[in-house]
Amino acid sequence: MLPGIFWIVPVAGVITIIFAILLTRNVLKRPTGTPKMKEIGDIIFQGAWAFLKRQYTTISIYSAAIAIVIGVLVGVLGGTEVEGLTALDIGWRTSVAFLVGAFCSGLAGFIGMFIAVKSNVRCAAAAQQSLTQAVNVALRGGAVSGFLITALSLIGVTVIFFAYGGQNNPQIAPHLIVGFGFGASFVALFAQLGGGIYTKAADVGADLVGKVESGIPEDDPRNPAVIADLVGDNVGDCAGRGADLFESTAAENIGAMILGIAAYLATDNIAWILFPLCVRGFGMIASMIGLLCVRAKENENAMNALNRGYFVSIGLSVIGLAVTVYLMLDNWWLFGAGMVGIVASVVIVFITQYYTEARYKPVQEIAEASKTGPATNIIMGMSVGFSTTFATALVIGLALLLSYWMGSESGVIGAGAFGTAVATMGMLMTCPYVLSMDTFGPITDNANGINEMAGAGPEIRRITDRLDAVGNTTKALTKGYAMVSAGLAAFLLFQAYLDRVSFIKFGESGLYTVVDIARIEVFVGALLAVMIVYLFSAWAIKAVGKTASKIIEEVRRQFKADPGILAGTSKPDYARAVDITTRAGLREMIAPGLLPVLGPIVIGVVFRYLPGGYDAAMVVAAVLMVGTIGGIMMASFMNNGGGAWDNAKKMIEDGQLKDENGQVLGKGTFAHQAAVVGDTVGDPLKDTAGPSLHVLVKLLATITLVMCPLFISV
Amino acid sequence: MLPGIFWIVPVAGVITIIFAILLTRNVLKRPTGTPKMKEIGDIIFQGAWAFLKRQYTTISIYSAAIAIVIGVLVGVLGGTEVEGLTALDIGWRTSVAFLVGAFCSGLAGFIGMFIAVKSNVRCAAAAQQSLTQAVNVALRGGAVSGFLITALSLIGVTVIFFAYGGQNNPQIAPHLIVGFGFGASFVALFAQLGGGIYTKAADVGADLVGKVESGIPEDDPRNPAVIADLVGDNVGDCAGRGADLFESTAAENIGAMILGIAAYLATDNIAWILFPLCVRGFGMIASMIGLLCVRAKENENAMNALNRGYFVSIGLSVIGLAVTVYLMLDNWWLFGAGMVGIVASVVIVFITQYYTEARYKPVQEIAEASKTGPATNIIMGMSVGFSTTFATALVIGLALLLSYWMGSESGVIGAGAFGTAVATMGMLMTCPYVLSMDTFGPITDNANGINEMAGAGPEIRRITDRLDAVGNTTKALTKGYAMVSAGLAAFLLFQAYLDRVSFIKFGESGLYTVVDIARIEVFVGALLAVMIVYLFSAWAIKAVGKTASKIIEEVRRQFKADPGILAGTSKPDYARAVDITTRAGLREMIAPGLLPVLGPIVIGVVFRYLPGGYDAAMVVAAVLMVGTIGGIMMASFMNNGGGAWDNAKKMIEDGQLKDENGQVLGKGTFAHQAAVVGDTVGDPLKDTAGPSLHVLVKLLATITLVMCPLFISV
Repeated sequence: MLPGIFWIVPVAGVITIIFAILLTRNVLKRPTGTPKMKEIGDIIFQGAWAFLKRQYTTISIYSAAIAIVIGVLVGVLGGTEVEGLTALDIGWRTSVAFLVGAFCSGLAGFIGMFIAVKSNVRCAAAAQQSLTQAVNVALRGGAVSGFLITALSLIGVTVIFFAYGGQNNPQIAPHLIVGFGFGASFVALFAQLGGGIYTKAADVGADLVGKVESGIPEDDPRNPAVIADLVGDNVGDCAGRGADLFESTAAENIGAMILGIAAYLATDNIAWILFPLCVRGFGMIASMIGLLCVRAKENENAMNALNRGYFVSIGLSVIGLAVTVYLMLDNWWLFGAGMVGIVASVVIVFITQYYTEARYKPVQEIAEASKTGPATNIIMGMSVGFSTTFATALVIGLALLLSYWMGSESGVIGAGAFGTAVATMGMLMTCPYVLSMDTFGPITDNANGINEMAGAGPEIRRITDRLDAVGNTTKALTKGYAMVSAGLAAFLLFQAYLDRVSFIKFGESGLYTVVDIARIEVFVGALLAVMIVYLFSAWAIKAVGKTASKIIEEVRRQFKADPGILAGTSKPDYARAVDITTRAGLREMIAPGLLPVLGPIVIGVVFRYLPGGYDAAMVVAAVLMVGTIGGIMMASFMNNGGGAWDNAKKMIEDGQLKDENGQVLGKGTFAHQAAVVGDTVGDPLKDTAGPSLHVLVKLLATITLVMCPLFISV
Repeated sequence: MLPGIFWIVPVAGVITIIFAILLTRNVLKRPTGTPKMKEIGDIIFQGAWAFLKRQYTTISIYSAAIAIVIGVLVGVLGGTEVEGLTALDIGWRTSVAFLVGAFCSGLAGFIGMFIAVKSNVRCAAAAQQSLTQAVNVALRGGAVSGFLITALSLIGVTVIFFAYGGQNNPQIAPHLIVGFGFGASFVALFAQLGGGIYTKAADVGADLVGKVESGIPEDDPRNPAVIADLVGDNVGDCAGRGADLFESTAAENIGAMILGIAAYLATDNIAWILFPLCVRGFGMIASMIGLLCVRAKENENAMNALNRGYFVSIGLSVIGLAVTVYLMLDNWWLFGAGMVGIVASVVIVFITQYYTEARYKPVQEIAEASKTGPATNIIMGMSVGFSTTFATALVIGLALLLSYWMGSESGVIGAGAFGTAVATMGMLMTCPYVLSMDTFGPITDNANGINEMAGAGPEIRRITDRLDAVGNTTKALTKGYAMVSAGLAAFLLFQAYLDRVSFIKFGESGLYTVVDIARIEVFVGALLAVMIVYLFSAWAIKAVGKTASKIIEEVRRQFKADPGILAGTSKPDYARAVDITTRAGLREMIAPGLLPVLGPIVIGVVFRYLPGGYDAAMVVAAVLMVGTIGGIMMASFMNNGGGAWDNAKKMIEDGQLKDENGQVLGKGTFAHQAAVVGDTVGDPLKDTAGPSLHVLVKLLATITLVMCPLFISV
């Protein structure tokens, strides 16, 4: 029998979808500004559409192939029968779940980006009226994406859970739906990678050939790559991060359900398995109310308005958590564990601000180092990026220890790990709100670009400029949030993996619990995992460079073929630049995308069949665990370092750097040029490799969960 | 009773010392060139001397403090009695061993550098006669350092082993001498860090203020920082790397002896414990003969001559290994394990060349990326550096798996891990030769600088220029060698740690073998370990930046105070620049130096006393193991990436980069300026943080070995 409180899941799901539809209608009916603005908006829309079509075609082909491979591998090599299901049964169910997960993830990214692109031009137009209106458009446009994504993830997991017999066999169904999480993270990796490569290649390419070579300003309509640059903001930040957090919520939800099985078996209370779904339902309602509370005042920093809404969401989430725990688990230790997750999400926001905002020391040190040139700027930025791992590791480590301890103290069977699951769920309650703030970023960024290109007045530009700066902050915060959620979720996903290995190997969970890194093969597996993180990063940033060079070639070609472009008398061929970026970006995404998918499978299968009596399942566990550590530390370096470089440049542009005589070192000075180099280096780190690493970490978890039958010799 | 073959240890030790004395006399009696050259040589000598005096004073103070802390901590908190020794007994013995190790390491670095500095000017002078003579001086000067260091390490370990009752209680003595390894690695870390910070700060500072700001060439005598730069090559590359490999050989030797205890107890044959000492004795003889075979021909690449000698050493080492295995262990599987180590050392040399030499793709890609500016150069270099982890991880992983497997097949008790120990010993046999080649680098680099400053003719400069390029290669190879030896040794040092924990906890070895990373506290420990690697790197490279800014200020001050300096009419105050660099460099070395020393201790002690029933010894084991993985991967990125950046710049300077019209893009072009930025960024990575990370990895091992009584609740 389902617990009474379970009504929250369908209700929250339906309400959220209605909410998203209302927001969409609200945004779409707004004016699109001057004909010039509308024209630019249309071009961006077409470019984004063209990219998404191609990208999702590619992803669909790979998804179909992977679905077949999973089915065949698990079905054939998977081994024994588990609780009445043959390997073949598990295989096809996993394949179908994979396809559903992949489809939902793609759909979420697609719709979110559609609305975001439509919101850009309306936000630009709204800035003509007031700041308040512009904030409204940007936040509501972002919220469509944020809420739809989380709703789809909640509904998707719920439906497939029940479709696979969750009500009658709750101890088996969570194992069958891991494919959903894998599908979601597979698409997320490609969406984040493809989008990340596209956006930074277009950005770097447009800057190098425009600002550096031809001396025309940023977002100048004469630059053929300028539309590609604006399209990039959407495909990277909206579609990419959306897919990232879609799979986060899905994979972590499923992992938490698997961990609930032990308590379910001990108590025969299905609430342990359904708890993650319900708590997320409350989180969506809390986020929705928080969002409705945002009222930007005309003369305040828009960030304050966003923060007010955020704190309302947090407060309501705490209440929602308390209610769910009380009604479903009735154990206040677990409420404490959930609170750990919520607090961690707030703490990381402040830490991210410290490392990436110009009013604190790290960014100032980078700006200072720019005085002696690009080399010292890079060295200092790298140092700042490296040192951010301290705070990241400390927050994740403390949150894990505390929530695990509270889980253990709860006295429930297996609840140490379940404590970390509750913490993760607590943290993810505000996910729709955070995601709305995140998408706020590219919308305001684009609105600013559209106003620049359409030649809007200085008063209007000032508004979108200010919103753009706020958007940079919210983007950075979301990355911190995604990173810590990946770290917090890591432990619960490991335990889910071990549980699943135990289940397959011994027919019940809890019998396979040790991952002994003092065994030679396990140590080597751990070494290879960290190597995969480095190699993936290498390929991802190299892909940006390669794609950027294609754009640069094309822009040079257009300038050469038609001198009228630079003179401003003829129009550049934006569409061709977009098309070339699209093709190159998608081609370059394949190799880094397949590495973390194939890597763990190859390692696991090789060790399974190698003579020497190696425990391949344990090797893969080490790949997962140590790969997660390596990935999170590298992502911390890249995201925060990149953000700091970016803001050091902005700080100089704002005239906040002075030489020893008190003279301002602003735009165009040697220091500024050095800071521009730092920003350009940071770009592929913070917008391509870094965010993709969050996805990689979770992909490692879902792929090992799904593929673990392959690694077990029975 | 000692095995008959043991005579090789004292004989090799004594012969090596005599050999080093003869080499020293041979070098010192050579001419010191023109008065101008002699003058410059003297200034360098004084600067180096001043640095070493200050540096070793600082290190002595810290060493004394640490020795007391070790004694007190182990003595008081150490717990129970082990085989008749109280905690207090173990405490003071460890302290004394620590001091002896620290002293030997310091002495080795000191003498080696003394001779190297004396060789510089003689190498410069010899270049006036012939290339052959110049090679002879540089190689012999380097060999003093290489051979003395390994001899001191061998003799030191042997003496202290017998002094602590090794002959009567061979199962206990190795545990008591771990302090020697800790002392050695403690000094090595500070030597490498302090030297690395000094050398790169001087280099970066001199370049930025000289080449960039004032437009005077490299090594120009008008630059007040030029002597500091030359001094830096000696204190970083000679003293630093020497101390690094001193502690490598010592720590790995001791670890291997600990692993031999199990087989000794089973067979009552002390040969298992003494094997590492004997095999190293043969290695020294093999290296000596190899060195004597080097005869540079006037018209060939000096690298070929060095390679011939290297292959002679390798061949003789294989024979020496076979003889030792036959006489002492009589088990050919273990000979195979040793061969794995030797082969791995050769393979890594080729791989390092692939990633860092201009004739291969990676460096060419970086040079190519320089065409679009410093940002793309940095991105590409980072990508190359990241991707070198692939080869590093593969070589280390395969060598570990193979040697462990051969050890297991040998049928000897505990010989899986002992197999990796034999592999490490096999690899380290040629250490004296490799170290001689390494010190060849800074000597030729300095000789080249001296010739430049003394205004030597173009023919002579051509010779030292060519040798300098060879020196760059040998330096890069040594780093690869040190890195793989650290990786290979890692596993044996872990096992030694677990053995020691078992010994303390249960009174015998082999009972504490599992490091379960699926436990929450162990996972968090692993996370913190990787964080320490990042934070250490952050501080190390930041120290370079901070120190460099002090030099820049001083040079600017001198140029301002006396315009005659730039005009060439008055002499700059070299000594003051040296002194300022020394003070700043040594101050900046403290924080990063103490981090890896205190980090593991704090983590271990905190988890020991935290409520929650954590296994602190296991947490520390994870810190050691995963920290090693993180450290080696980061070092691979930094060393190889830095080398690649350096050579991409050299490739452009050699006129090997062309634009699309076939025009050479040489010195002074936009591409070259971009490549200079990359080189400057790479400098602190490859010469400060990267090499220090090797030491850090081994320091983690020795410190946990020594301090493990603190982590065990009994």
